[in-house]
Formats: sequence, structure tokens, C-alpha cells
Amino acid sequence: MDLNVPLDVPRNARDEYIRNYMEITRGSGRLMLFAGDQKVEHLNDDFYGPGISEDDADPEHLFRIASRGRIGVFATQLGLIARYGMDYPEVPYLVKLNSKTNLVKTSQADPLSRAWLDVSQVMEFRRESGLRILGVGYTVYPGSEHEVVMLREAAQVVHEAHRHGLVVVLWMYPRGKAVKDERDPHLIAGACGVAAALGSDFVKVNYPKAENPALAFREAVMAAGRTKVICAGGSSEDPELFLQRLHEQIHISGASGNATGRNIHQKRLEDAIRMCNAIYAITVENRSLEEALRMLR
Amino acid sequence: MDLNVPLDVPRNARDEYIRNYMEITRGSGRLMLFAGDQKVEHLNDDFYGPGISEDDADPEHLFRIASRGRIGVFATQLGLIARYGMDYPEVPYLVKLNSKTNLVKTSQADPLSRAWLDVSQVMEFRRESGLRILGVGYTVYPGSEHEVVMLREAAQVVHEAHRHGLVVVLWMYPRGKAVKDERDPHLIAGACGVAAALGSDFVKVNYPKAENPALAFREAVMAAGRTKVICAGGSSEDPELFLQRLHEQIHISGASGNATGRNIHQKRLEDAIRMCNAIYAITVENRSLEEALRMLR
Amino acid sequence: MDLNVPLDVPRNARDEYIRNYMEITRGSGRLMLFAGDQKVEHLNDDFYGPGISEDDADPEHLFRIASRGRIGVFATQLGLIARYGMDYPEVPYLVKLNSKTNLVKTSQADPLSRAWLDVSQVMEFRRESGLRILGVGYTVYPGSEHEVVMLREAAQVVHEAHRHGLVVVLWMYPRGKAVKDERDPHLIAGACGVAAALGSDFVKVNYPKAENPALAFREAVMAAGRTKVICAGGSSEDPELFLQRLHEQIHISGASGNATGRNIHQKRLEDAIRMCNAIYAITVENRSLEEALRMLR
Amino acid sequence: MDLNVPLDVPRNARDEYIRNYMEITRGSGRLMLFAGDQKVEHLNDDFYGPGISEDDADPEHLFRIASRGRIGVFATQLGLIARYGMDYPEVPYLVKLNSKTNLVKTSQADPLSRAWLDVSQVMEFRRESGLRILGVGYTVYPGSEHEVVMLREAAQVVHEAHRHGLVVVLWMYPRGKAVKDERDPHLIAGACGVAAALGSDFVKVNYPKAENPALAFREAVMAAGRTKVICAGGSSEDPELFLQRLHEQIHISGASGNATGRNIHQKRLEDAIRMCNAIYAITVENRSLEEALRMLR
Amino acid sequence: MDLNVPLDVPRNARDEYIRNYMEITRGSGRLMLFAGDQKVEHLNDDFYGPGISEDDADPEHLFRIASRGRIGVFATQLGLIARYGMDYPEVPYLVKLNSKTNLVKTSQADPLSRAWLDVSQVMEFRRESGLRILGVGYTVYPGSEHEVVMLREAAQVVHEAHRHGLVVVLWMYPRGKAVKDERDPHLIAGACGVAAALGSDFVKVNYPKAENPALAFREAVMAAGRTKVICAGGSSEDPELFLQRLHEQIHISGASGNATGRNIHQKRLEDAIRMCNAIYAITVENRSLEEALRMLR
Repeated sequence: MDLNVPLDVPRNARDEYIRNYMEITRGSGRLMLFAGDQKVEHLNDDFYGPGISEDDADPEHLFRIASRGRIGVFATQLGLIARYGMDYPEVPYLVKLNSKTNLVKTSQADPLSRAWLDVSQVMEFRRESGLRILGVGYTVYPGSEHEVVMLREAAQVVHEAHRHGLVVVLWMYPRGKAVKDERDPHLIAGACGVAAALGSDFVKVNYPKAENPALAFREAVMAAGRTKVICAGGSSEDPELFLQRLHEQIHISGASGNATGRNIHQKRLEDAIRMCNAIYAITVENRSLEEALRMLR
Repeated sequence: MDLNVPLDVPRNARDEYIRNYMEITRGSGRLMLFAGDQKVEHLNDDFYGPGISEDDADPEHLFRIASRGRIGVFATQLGLIARYGMDYPEVPYLVKLNSKTNLVKTSQADPLSRAWLDVSQVMEFRRESGLRILGVGYTVYPGSEHEVVMLREAAQVVHEAHRHGLVVVLWMYPRGKAVKDERDPHLIAGACGVAAALGSDFVKVNYPKAENPALAFREAVMAAGRTKVICAGGSSEDPELFLQRLHEQIHISGASGNATGRNIHQKRLEDAIRMCNAIYAITVENRSLEEALRMLR
Repeated sequence: MDLNVPLDVPRNARDEYIRNYMEITRGSGRLMLFAGDQKVEHLNDDFYGPGISEDDADPEHLFRIASRGRIGVFATQLGLIARYGMDYPEVPYLVKLNSKTNLVKTSQADPLSRAWLDVSQVMEFRRESGLRILGVGYTVYPGSEHEVVMLREAAQVVHEAHRHGLVVVLWMYPRGKAVKDERDPHLIAGACGVAAALGSDFVKVNYPKAENPALAFREAVMAAGRTKVICAGGSSEDPELFLQRLHEQIHISGASGNATGRNIHQKRLEDAIRMCNAIYAITVENRSLEEALRMLR
Repeated sequence: MDLNVPLDVPRNARDEYIRNYMEITRGSGRLMLFAGDQKVEHLNDDFYGPGISEDDADPEHLFRIASRGRIGVFATQLGLIARYGMDYPEVPYLVKLNSKTNLVKTSQADPLSRAWLDVSQVMEFRRESGLRILGVGYTVYPGSEHEVVMLREAAQVVHEAHRHGLVVVLWMYPRGKAVKDERDPHLIAGACGVAAALGSDFVKVNYPKAENPALAFREAVMAAGRTKVICAGGSSEDPELFLQRLHEQIHISGASGNATGRNIHQKRLEDAIRMCNAIYAITVENRSLEEALRMLR
Repeated sequence: MDLNVPLDVPRNARDEYIRNYMEITRGSGRLMLFAGDQKVEHLNDDFYGPGISEDDADPEHLFRIASRGRIGVFATQLGLIARYGMDYPEVPYLVKLNSKTNLVKTSQADPLSRAWLDVSQVMEFRRESGLRILGVGYTVYPGSEHEVVMLREAAQVVHEAHRHGLVVVLWMYPRGKAVKDERDPHLIAGACGVAAALGSDFVKVNYPKAENPALAFREAVMAAGRTKVICAGGSSEDPELFLQRLHEQIHISGASGNATGRNIHQKRLEDAIRMCNAIYAITVENRSLEEALRMLR
């Protein structure tokens, strides 16, 4: 595996960074991120209602999956980690630093999301709790009238996280009145370039809409350069189609992983674990689509 | 009682946290919060006028009740505690950190409320005064255009409070032009999830409007997970109905307590104390509705 | 005199607080505040023009009155105190921390006023200058869209001032597009309650408009509890009516003093001093209206 | 000369303040300020175009004048001082701390100008460069919706500058949608009173428009009290009329000097120097108008 | 070469400043800046699409050019430098401190761009990485409603950079609803004057639109005084016309260099290097247009 340690990781944090990077990618260079920040981002919409397993109504469902399924890292807010981490110390965590609710729509006001905690507070928590915190995440909305606030905060998050050897994932979601089509492949490529300029290790973007999305997505992967691109899973859908698309993202587009939430946790525990393992097989173990599909059944 | 000490409470503050948590719940795991922050939130509307006892015109009425009635904790602003605390040192206090008046309506501007004091200043006050400050409270308005400010501040409050072993109660009130129905059970459940993601110990929400509110409220209790849900008392009403609803909240919905203000302090002192005790009986002592009603008479 | 030392005055500042409180009230528990912050609040409108003595055109007029008249404390901006204080070291001063001009009307924008200096800078000035700085003042506009800024700043001012043993007077003026009637007795009572929740020693409010204002004002005095209420003097008027109203405020409403500016300094020096002394007689010396009126003539 | 050292100059900075004040006024108590901050305030409009000497196109023109003409102090931004000061170490400098361009008009947005550097950074520069920095300047726009920001910043500038013994000049320009007539004598007097309340040593204002401006301007001089008033030179005009007006400002209105820019630097070097000297003669040397006019020719 | 060390470079940083200045100009006093901050400023528009070499899709293309072509300095965001610098340690870097995307147009909101990192963080990075960081860059939009924020931040960047001996380049782009014609020669000259007042070493502006732009541009060079003017390259065009214009900028207008991005990196590697070298020949080596054109072929 080709591991590029960025130069804003100081010498005394290099070993820590390498250790975290190897763990989060399980040595594969690819990242399977189990996304669990939706209790704020989507309130209770993703956790309760028709088509959603009753298991998902309890926040602990996320921790049970992260513990028993195979994942690269479980991303959620520090408050939840603090409340359940003592029972799930084996889970690899990524602290999502900023979150906002979905109540105010873009038609009302352009999105702004700010860090709830500073990286130094996450480090303090890591030391005190002894939990396996491998990285931090932060969302930027390029094209928002407030992007100036988030661009600076993201740059600071990268700088501070790297100073401590943490891995950084930036969620880059072009959004705001100025953004006509959030799924435009060229715009998503631009967002990946911004993440690269910010110095992120990974950038999480939405999958573009295009005649051939897997090919169109290559522009984004190229634009990101040495920053690795992972694709958001999006809303729940047919597991087989999901896995097929994931396989194409990696093997056609050149993506380095995926970030999946609803397609995992809206299932009952056993199904969720199987889905995790199938995604992990394609992403981290480089298995074929057929092998992964077999794991689902 | 099952006491979960969150991991953002550092090791050297664990005993303090446990002590405060046990005191505030009287070892029951349930919280009877006597809410007295309305002198700012509702100006003098709750303290003077038709149907309100003349006793309530004087702020000391609140302290007399808190001292002589049975409660878990008395929540109010630090300025009042500083002015009356020397005469009521036995009262268990929770400092409400932020408050705003009700003059600017949501139709004019989305709500924003910020902390008047930092947690470190509350701790300094506690040391100097020797008062029994067990926790802090903070209001968030999810759905406000300014929620970004309050979400960060709330996360910081939780982080700092836990560092010092204080218990945290978040008031979560969805409000703003984007919020169509503040009493929607699904929205209230979402707000509880946000409080859980913020790492709060307790979340205070309004009781939902629904055909069967006690059942509908279960979604919120589930969404909050290990964060305990307490229900706001709301405007003054018939004491028997009030106690019946409270009993249902606990025994049907699974709530862990209540936060009551006007239904207590708008009564003359003796009646207010009896009401306190009846609420306490149901909440903390796990008494039946009938026993509680007997205490009222 | 019944002196309640609030608990946010730390032990090592108690003596200082008691000394300042006794001096500012001359041991009477009542405050005669000579208000001289209008050079900013009203620009030159109060100091030059028809019906105003030519003496008032010179800022030193204020200091001459404060020095030769009997007052509790002279409230003005630090810049003026720094420029004239060396010639008037005997005057008891209260530093008005925030001020704004009257140019932008509420119809254009809701009012916002922020502290020019921090309490620690006032303390430093006090040490260096050796002047008798007994307290600080701060204006809050409840009902302004910007009240959130002023509520926090006011709470911080109280906290810091009490830490140093200074007495605090809050000017509470409900104002903004949301405020229909600034003189509504119930609203003024609400503002007094806010000042109490902020922990202020004194609250300065406008006198309500009501059929019987002296009776209506009692609601405000009750709502303020242990925070003492003083009444703003307002625009210049007949001295006899002024003193009669003052006498009623104290003996009917229960107010603890007054804050008078224009009714004093718009007169020529000798008349201004006589007016001071008459006000002082009623407020601090508890004289009858007749005695005070005799002093005027 | 009557030198009033304000009490916010601490004891250990008194000698420094007196030295700076004596130098800036050349022991006369009057200030001839050569204003050179227009490269930001007016962009290149004042330096290039019809009726402007070609000498003025080069920023060094300002320094040549300041070096060879007789002045009290040369006011400009620190960036220019840092770039030319090594060749003009004999010039007495005043650092203009804030500046804005003239592109956004008041009809679009109310003016806001903030300090580019803090006083402590100016002091650091003074120590390192060894230049003769005697004071600092700051512009406030009373009546702007943003005056709250500038009032606080101005108060802080005065406080910090005095702590280091620097002399302060406040530019007070009422401006904003709320300001109907910037040249109203009563409004200008109000602005002078604000400067006095802020504790400034000098206040620079525009000359009022009135039937008899020299008389009308007396209100402003009175309102400023011990803060000394200097008059802005304004746009370029006939030198004889300019000097006559200056003489009246001092001898009729009671002004303590002037601040002149364009009327000096838009001339070729030799004429500019002569104009400087004539202004200096009236302001600092107390010469007659006729003597000054002779120096022009 | 005439090297003016500004006085805000402290004595202990003079040698460092001289070293950086000599390196960045290769001892010529002229600057050839290879601009590579467009991945944020223009998203992926400049790197992918018709007329753009496929080489440009990969961020590393910029580093390959900077390494193999002759340049004065390569300007880009720190995130990219941190990710590629270990493979290109020989490149002279300038860290572009602020950047914004082009999504929100001026018709929607006036531009605001803030520093992602502080100068002290850049210095820390320089120490840790050992890379050849010679300077920093910052963009100001005079005429934006938010210019007040950027003017202060720019002044602070200059102050801090000079304290550490770094060279500063300010991008000065008049922009906002108040700016009618961004290419007006007089306005560009004004922007250069602002940069001089801010104390910048170099100012990068757009080339004016005028009948004779080379002559019209002289106003800007004069207005900048000792601050050196460099011209932005703008969008891609015919290389011969580009070089001719560059030659005129230097030899007719008096510019001290150029900042070129798209006209270099949108070509395939070998052509890009040849273009670099031709630009360098004119700018730094003072070669004739003919010599430079020969290098292109």
C-alpha cells in the first residue's frame, strides 16, 4: 500500500498518523466508512418510519452494527461516542465535528455548519477515554454564501488533526442558492479539488448524475489527486444495485472507498451486519461483486 | 439504579459526576426539575395577573417553594441564585445558562439564545458560594436560522460541564420560520436525537400533540437512547389532569421525569409545595397516581 | 440598612463591595444617581439650545454639579472622567460602560449598544487614577433583535464587577420593532425581572404610563425582588412636579432612588445644585416633599 | 501652554505622553496635521487627474512634503511609513489605524471601518523602527448602523494609546442613511461630544455649513470641552480663502488646529511646502493671516 | 538590484527577508509568479474540458511544471504543498492564504475571502517540512461590502509575514455591486495604492482595459510607489500575444513581473515548461521579445 504522509503532519506525529491511516483503511488504502451522523443531519427521519427496521429507533443499533460488522471506521458525533463507547471499545471511531439539522431548507437560507468541538478537545477525549479515535470529519458546503466560514474552519481542522496524527475526511457537498445541480459531475470534481487544496486525506462526495456516472466520476477522482475520494451511499435502495454501483465506483471511477449509512442501519441487525461485510469485502478486501453478493444472502 | 457515566467525564471528575447525578435524581434515575427561568423567558407574564397567586409576584416565592417542597433540582438564572442563595443554601440548584425574552416573535426573527456565563464561571461561583450547584441547563432551538450558534455552544457546554462533573439538561425546542408544528411527535423525537448526539444527560422537550400522545412520545424516548427525556410542564392547568399526564409520560412513554414551572409557582405557597410533592411522588418515588392525588388535597 | 451582598461577590471582595454600596447609597440603601451619559446618547441635544442654560454647553458643567451638589454617584463615560477627574477627585463616579447615539431610529434598525471598555480596564483605571469609582452601568434593550448580545454582555459585566466588589446599575429599556409601548407597566416589570435574573444591584427603568403610575409601578418593584429599582428622570419639566413624582415613586411604589440628568444639568450651576440637593433630600435623607421644595427656592 | 494629561495615561507613561503632545503641537497646544490617508479613503482620485500636480502620482510626494514643509504631524497608514520611513526618519508620524475605500456609497450600505492593526503592534513597530511615532488616528462614523463596532474600537484605541503615552486623534464623521446633513453644526457638535466621551485628545471634524460657519462652529468647540477640535481641510480650493477660513476657525470658533491633505499635496512640491508653512504659521506660530499669505507668494 | 527592506521587518528578520526577496526575484527585482490557486478559485473549470491538456486534470501537473520550468515562485494553497512537497522540495513556494470558490456570483452577494491559516501556522509548517516557503499571498476585494474584513486581515498578514521575513503578494481585485468596471485603469491604480498603504511587497492586479493599456497601466505603477506591481495573466490565449503584452507591461508600464496560471498549466507538460521559460526570460532575465518567442518554438 502506497501511503503518502502529508508534510503538515509533524515529525513527532508521523508514526501516529501512519498507524491511524493503516487502521482506518485496514492496510488496504481504501476506506469503508460507516456513516452515523444522521441523527442530527436528518433528525429522526432515517431511524423511524415505514421501511425502517424497528432496531434502528435506538441509537445503540449503530454501535451494535459497528461492533459486529466489518467496517473501516464508524463516523458519528462525539456525544454518542461518549455515551456508548464504554460498551463498544473495540470500534474504530471517527468524530464528525460539525452537524446541522435539515429543517432550514436552502430556499430559506444558505447552509452553514460549524464545528461543535475543536480537535484539541477530541484529542483530550481520546486520551481520557482510551477509545480508538482514528480521525475526524467535517462538512463543507461550497457554493453556500457562508462557505468562507467553513473553508477556514476546514483548513484549521486539517491543520490541527494532522498535527496530532489524525486522519481527516471532508464531506464536500456543493449547496446553496447558487448551486443549480448538486450532482453535476464537473461541480463534484471541483469540490474534490477544493478538498485537495484544503489538504484532506479523504473527500466524501455524492455520486454524480450522468449518462455513465462511473465514467463521469473519474474527473472527480483525477481532480482530487492524492486526496482519496469516497462516495456517499445516499438513500436506501436495492442492496444488489448498491453493491454493483460500489464495485464500479472503485474499479471504473477509481474511488478509494465509500461512506454508507442508511443502506446499512435501516436494516435489522443481522441484515445490517451482512450488508456491512459485503461492502467491506468489495472496498477493503478487493473481492468481486459476486463474492460480495453471496455474503448478503 | 443504572448510572451511565459518559466518557467525556474525565476520570478525576467521575465521583463528582456520580454524586451530582445521584443527588439530582435522588438516586432514582428520574429527574423532577422545578423550572424557574421564566422571569426572562416570559418576562412578568407568568408571575403577575389574573389566576396567579400574589405570592408569585416576588422572586423569592420560587426559592421558598424550592426550599420547602420536594424537588430534584431548581433551575434558574445565576443572578437570582446569587441574590437569594445565602438564605436557601439547602436547595439543589441547576444554573440555566442562556435565556431570551419572548418579545421578538418568530414571525419577526428566528430565535437565538446564548450563554450568559461560561461553565468555568459557574464553577468559580460554586466554589466561592459553597452552594449545591449540581448541573447546568441550556436551550437549543433546532430549526432556527441561528441553530448553528446554539449547537456549537451546547456542545461546548456539555463538554465543559462534564469535565467538571456537572449534570447537563438541554432544553430542545424546535422553533423558527422553518418549523411548521412544534408539537409534531416525529420532530420532537428528532430533537431528542440531536440532544443525544450532543451528549446531554437529560433532554427537556414539549409533550407532543397526537391522538395518543403518551404512545406517540415513545418515539422520542427511543430516539434519545441513553440520554434521558423529561417533559416540560407547559402552561398552567388542572392539577389532576396534569398529574395523570405525568404518570402516563413515565409509565407509558418511558420518560425519566418532568420539568414543571408555572403549574407549581403560580399557586400560593402551600398549594405550590403540595403540587411539588405530588409531582415528586410520581417522578422520584414511583408512587401511583392515586397516592399523588391524595397529596394534593 | 439592610445590605444583601450577592454570592457572586467573592469573599475577598466583600468588604470592597460593602464599602462601595454604602458610599453610593450614603448608607441609606437608596441611590441618587446623577446621570451624565447623554453626550453620546442624545448628542448635543440635551446641552445646547432653547431652554437650556449656557452653562450646559461645556462638559465641565456636569463635573461642577457633581462636585458641589449632593449626589450618590455621577454616571458618565470613562473618557470624560479621565479628562476632568484630576480636578474633581472628590466626586463618586460610576462608569457607564456602553453608549450609542440616537441617530439611527428603531424604525431603521433595532438598538444595539456594546461595552466600550471591559470591567478589568475600569479597575486598572481606578488603580492608576486613584479616583472613587464605585460602580459600573450598562444598558440593555430587551425586545431588540440584538438583545442576545446585550444580555450576555450584561451578565458578564455583573459577574466581573462583582468579582471586584463594584456596584452594578443596569439601564433596562425595552425597545425595538417588537416593543409596542415602552411605558407599559407590565413590560417594565418584566424588564426589572430580567435585571434581577442578571444579578444587578440596581435597575434603572422608565416610569410607566398608567392611570395611577405610582401604583402601577409597584408591580415592577415587586418583580425586581432584591434588585433595587430606580426611576429615570426623563426629559426636563417643572421641578415641583418632578419632586412630587419622585416622592411618590419612593413612598408609594417602593422605588429605591432615582437617576436624574436633564432635570439637573440643563439648569445654570446654582439652580442645578439646588435641584440636586432637593432630590438628594427626598431620596437619601428621606425628607418630606415640603422640605425638598423649600430647598429649591 | 496648558497641558491636561488625562488620567487614563498611567503614571509610567506620563512623561512619554507629555513629550509626544509637546512635539505634535510644537509646544503651542495647537495641531497642524498633514493628512495623507487618502490613498485608501479616496483611492487614486486625489492623486492623479486634472488639476493635480504630476508630483502627486508618487506616494513619496507625501513624504517629501512632510520632510521639507513645516508640520505638526504626518498622518498616514503604517504600510507607507514602513516603506518610506527609512528615508524620512525626521518626520513626526501619526499612524492612521483604520481606513476604507470610497467605493461602497452610503446609499448601498452604512459605513464601517475597522483598525488594520492594534496599538500594541504600532508600539512594536515604533520600537523596532526607531521612527518618531507620536500618536494614532481612528475614524468613527456616528449615525452608521455599524457605529457600535467603531465606538467600542475607538474607546479601546484611546485606552491602549494612552497606556503607552501616545496622542490620539479621532476623525468623527457622522454618516449613514440616518444622517440627513453631515454638515449640520449641531450634529458636528454632537460628534465632538462623543469624541470627548471617548477620551480623545483631538477630534477632527468637517467644517459646518451655516450662514456664519465660524460662529456656528463654536458650539462644537464648546461641546468638545477639553478635547481639542481640529477642522478637516476638505477638497482643494483657493489657497487664500483656505487660509482665511483657517484663521477664523482658530480665532473666532476657538479651534485648536487643522488637518489638511488635498489642499497641500495636490500642488507641486515647492508650492505644497509653501502651503504647509503658511498653514503652520497660522496654526502653530499664531501668525496673522497677512503674514501667512505672504509666505504663499 | 535596489532592495528596500520595509521597516516592519524587525532587525532579527532582515537577513531572512533579504534572502527570500532575492530568491523570489532571482536577484532581478522582478517576480515571475506561477499562479496555481485556481482549484478553489475556479473549481475544475481551468483543469478539465475542451482546449485544456489532459495533463492538467491531475494536480501534480502544477508541481511538475513548477519543478522543471523556470519560475520565481509557485503560489498555491498549503494543502496541496503539504501533499506533494515531499516530491518537489526544490520548488520555491508561496502559500496563498485565502481562497473562495466562484459559485456565488457578485450579483448574489459581494465577495468575501478569509485566510484559511495564520502566518504563524505557515511558519510552523515551513520549519517542520523544511520546504522553501518564501512568501505568502492574500486576496482583497476593494469595493466589496465586506472589504473591511479583508483590509484588516491583509494588514495583519503583512505585519506577521514581515515579522518572520516572508515576502507578501496581495491580489487586489476591485469587485462587488459597487464596482462598475473592474478593468478601469484609474480604479486599478487605486487598488495599487491600497496595497501600498497596506505595506505589501508586491501587488497583483488585472491588466486595465484602455485604448492603450500599456500606457494607462503606468498610473497604477506610479500609485503603488515602492510596492511592486505584477500583472495577472488572465484566461488562456495566444502565447505570442501574451508574451508581447508582458514585454510591454514591463518596458512601457513599468511593471515588475507577472502572475501567470492558465496560460501555463492548461498546456501539456513540455509546452507548459517552454511557456514558463519564455515568461521567465522576459521577466527575470530581461530578454527581448524575440528571444522569448524563440524559446517557445
